[in-house]
Amino acid sequence: MPRSSVLASQAEDFPRWYQDVVAKAALADNGPVRGTMVILPYGFSIWERMQNELDARIKTVGADNCYFPLFIPESYLNREAEHVEGFAPEVAVVTHGGGKELDEPIVVRPTSETIINTYFSKWVQSYRDLPLKVNQWCNVVRWELRPRLFLRTTEFLWQEGHTCHATYEDARAFAETILTDVYADFMVNVLAIPVFTGRKPAYERFPGAINTLACEAMMLDGKALQMGTSHELGQNFAKAFGTQYSTETGGLEHVWQTSWGTSTRMMGGLIMAHGDDAGLRVPPRVAPIQAVVVLVKAEDGAGEAAEALARDLRAAGVRTELDARTDVSFGRRAVDWELKGVPVRIELGPRDIAAGQVTLVRRDTATKDATPIGGVARTVPGLLEQVQTELLGAARSWRDARTIDVTSVPDAVAASAEGFAQVSWRLLRQTDGEAALREHGITVRCLRQPDGSLPDSEDEDDTLALVARAY
Amino acid sequence: MPRSSVLASQAEDFPRWYQDVVAKAALADNGPVRGTMVILPYGFSIWERMQNELDARIKTVGADNCYFPLFIPESYLNREAEHVEGFAPEVAVVTHGGGKELDEPIVVRPTSETIINTYFSKWVQSYRDLPLKVNQWCNVVRWELRPRLFLRTTEFLWQEGHTCHATYEDARAFAETILTDVYADFMVNVLAIPVFTGRKPAYERFPGAINTLACEAMMLDGKALQMGTSHELGQNFAKAFGTQYSTETGGLEHVWQTSWGTSTRMMGGLIMAHGDDAGLRVPPRVAPIQAVVVLVKAEDGAGEAAEALARDLRAAGVRTELDARTDVSFGRRAVDWELKGVPVRIELGPRDIAAGQVTLVRRDTATKDATPIGGVARTVPGLLEQVQTELLGAARSWRDARTIDVTSVPDAVAASAEGFAQVSWRLLRQTDGEAALREHGITVRCLRQPDGSLPDSEDEDDTLALVARAY
Repeated sequence: MPRSSVLASQAEDFPRWYQDVVAKAALADNGPVRGTMVILPYGFSIWERMQNELDARIKTVGADNCYFPLFIPESYLNREAEHVEGFAPEVAVVTHGGGKELDEPIVVRPTSETIINTYFSKWVQSYRDLPLKVNQWCNVVRWELRPRLFLRTTEFLWQEGHTCHATYEDARAFAETILTDVYADFMVNVLAIPVFTGRKPAYERFPGAINTLACEAMMLDGKALQMGTSHELGQNFAKAFGTQYSTETGGLEHVWQTSWGTSTRMMGGLIMAHGDDAGLRVPPRVAPIQAVVVLVKAEDGAGEAAEALARDLRAAGVRTELDARTDVSFGRRAVDWELKGVPVRIELGPRDIAAGQVTLVRRDTATKDATPIGGVARTVPGLLEQVQTELLGAARSWRDARTIDVTSVPDAVAASAEGFAQVSWRLLRQTDGEAALREHGITVRCLRQPDGSLPDSEDEDDTLALVARAY
Repeated sequence: MPRSSVLASQAEDFPRWYQDVVAKAALADNGPVRGTMVILPYGFSIWERMQNELDARIKTVGADNCYFPLFIPESYLNREAEHVEGFAPEVAVVTHGGGKELDEPIVVRPTSETIINTYFSKWVQSYRDLPLKVNQWCNVVRWELRPRLFLRTTEFLWQEGHTCHATYEDARAFAETILTDVYADFMVNVLAIPVFTGRKPAYERFPGAINTLACEAMMLDGKALQMGTSHELGQNFAKAFGTQYSTETGGLEHVWQTSWGTSTRMMGGLIMAHGDDAGLRVPPRVAPIQAVVVLVKAEDGAGEAAEALARDLRAAGVRTELDARTDVSFGRRAVDWELKGVPVRIELGPRDIAAGQVTLVRRDTATKDATPIGGVARTVPGLLEQVQTELLGAARSWRDARTIDVTSVPDAVAASAEGFAQVSWRLLRQTDGEAALREHGITVRCLRQPDGSLPDSEDEDDTLALVARAY
């Protein structure tokens, strides 16, 4: 492993390491209002690539992007009882606008079910209008008392999808499609983060939902991070807002709904699932810079060779940056590209030119290979695919080795010191095991069937609880 | 011109026509909080294409995307005197968060100069850090008393760019680059809307700027719409926030800054620059759907032929929709695609299949041509380019015919009934002509040199004032 003295080491102090990476790789900074966040250009360029990849998948399952207002009348929140109970303590409230006190306070959206249902109730008339699927990329605000960059911030960026269906079964199936074909597929195949998909216990559901499904990933400190959720809303919001459709046989029914979201929190997941003591390791498919050509010295044609190489790499479809800042020491620049986690670094100086070669450095393994300069542009695309595959493989091996099936609460506690434990959900409930786990800071992340599938309810005999310490 | 009875006609009632198009083409709706807006899927898909095209141009001139918080401490706004005077009356104020009254009220960003300079003052240390260029796509809130969808809304979506430069000259040049190479280029070559670029009179400047440049377009009712602005901020914000850099010779200087923005207001411009009595006419480069294959009846292989044709068009790089909703009347569907302004419509039914042809309809000219089915996918890409060029040409001819050079205030008033007038800026100032114009609802849109270039100041002898009624 490369080692950088600019970061705390993961083993010594993981939270400090995280904070250091976020700062030194120039990903984000704290905003002036407590809990808010500035996403810096490099961090944002990773987020943009996440958005592009996820947005394409969301469009594939038929959801159209749109935009609903930031401001929601406070009374809207009150219409769904569980929803207001869940969100009222977290909202930011606008009381003055245009120099005057407002007649009705306005809530800054913590999520958009209420305002969107106001429109769904107009748009949905007939069974022919169903299913109806929309998505929006936007900012939301939930007051955060213990903020942490990307992981828990008062304002965060996310996408929230909202759908209406004619039947319970169709809504149910779509919530699973989002969880599996959109979210898990993106996380595994783009972020190279393996995820467990499962069902949340009732008390962990989204306020107003009848079922919440989640993707849970293991971070390198063995803790769980919830990476995305997909909710079945049943008819709760439809009833609160009158979202009804006329059936083929002339009846009038409330629609069945889903909502689902992923956020800038995934940036935290990316950092903590792949980073090492030298900084970030960004999987190539989500890397804004996949290869950096580092010019050691601009002598004897090395500058021109570096430019030509960057051009060739770009022509080969590789997102390439040329670092020709020869006024900055080579060592400092190398450390900086390691911090930023660029998958492949190509070092090139006058001596390399003389030898007709470059040094190709893989960020994930720190291996260095002398490579003929003429072969680099042909080699790198395949190498990037290899890095992508191996990062996923490493994350999966690591997680699977730390995910242990246990048969007692004390064993679950012991296993959770290092990673995840799977234990009978029935056992936990019969022995008040959750209270015992909570004393050790361990919670139920999700419920799964022994074969990894989603349980239809909490009451199936062989359901397993995945338990862990969590972010 | 095609004519649709679902809209008011432009000649009868232009504002009503605008409102009808926004509603019937399903572009936007009013939000529940007065002045806010819901952007519907079709409207948003046009906005997304605008974003993509503009974002690419912004990146080309070296600005990196990032994200700054929605919430700004109220005290930040107060640091630049003109800025707070300009924006204080329009802001929304958060006084409660997390269930408590806040110690310091928070302003929902009306624009981000103040919060961004807080970070610029940390990021900029040396001349080596300059120029520094960032951009963000986000929502902003400015309380609006007379809202109008897209044109004036309390919350709107926009991009705002912010830069720091070492010298006045560099900042000045960059503000012009944005105006000309980014904004005007996008508006002319993508939106097919010709724009006049010019300098705002001092009293129309952005609060805190030393110069505001603008793109002004003529709408089909002869009124002007400000489509985008680029500001020189001088050192005003740098001084208020201490954004300084050490020079090459060891001195310490405040940076020179620019900021620049375009918003969902451009959607209003698109509607009013190209629409006709049948609805929108979307220029192909910004059209989310460039061609629609309308299946008349699914008989005698017409359904399969329509699918194959849509496939061929997509393979030819045409953004294509297949409308196979044969349970809805053909006439109603044709009217709907005209409302939505899809540039090319291809009608195909069993009779066409028998004749080996389709009917190709241009939305802009309403011309219908029988075309051999095998040639459609080859024909359409070129046809779309032609439509793009002709929409721009038509808009330019129309505007130029209604932009008249005049030599007196009464003549300016007369010309402004139909379009724009250009009159000596010196004359206006010496005769208090602006007051006379204002009585007729006419304002100075921008100042230009006789050759169309940007004046260096307001005081040049031959500067012309472009005057018009305006949105």
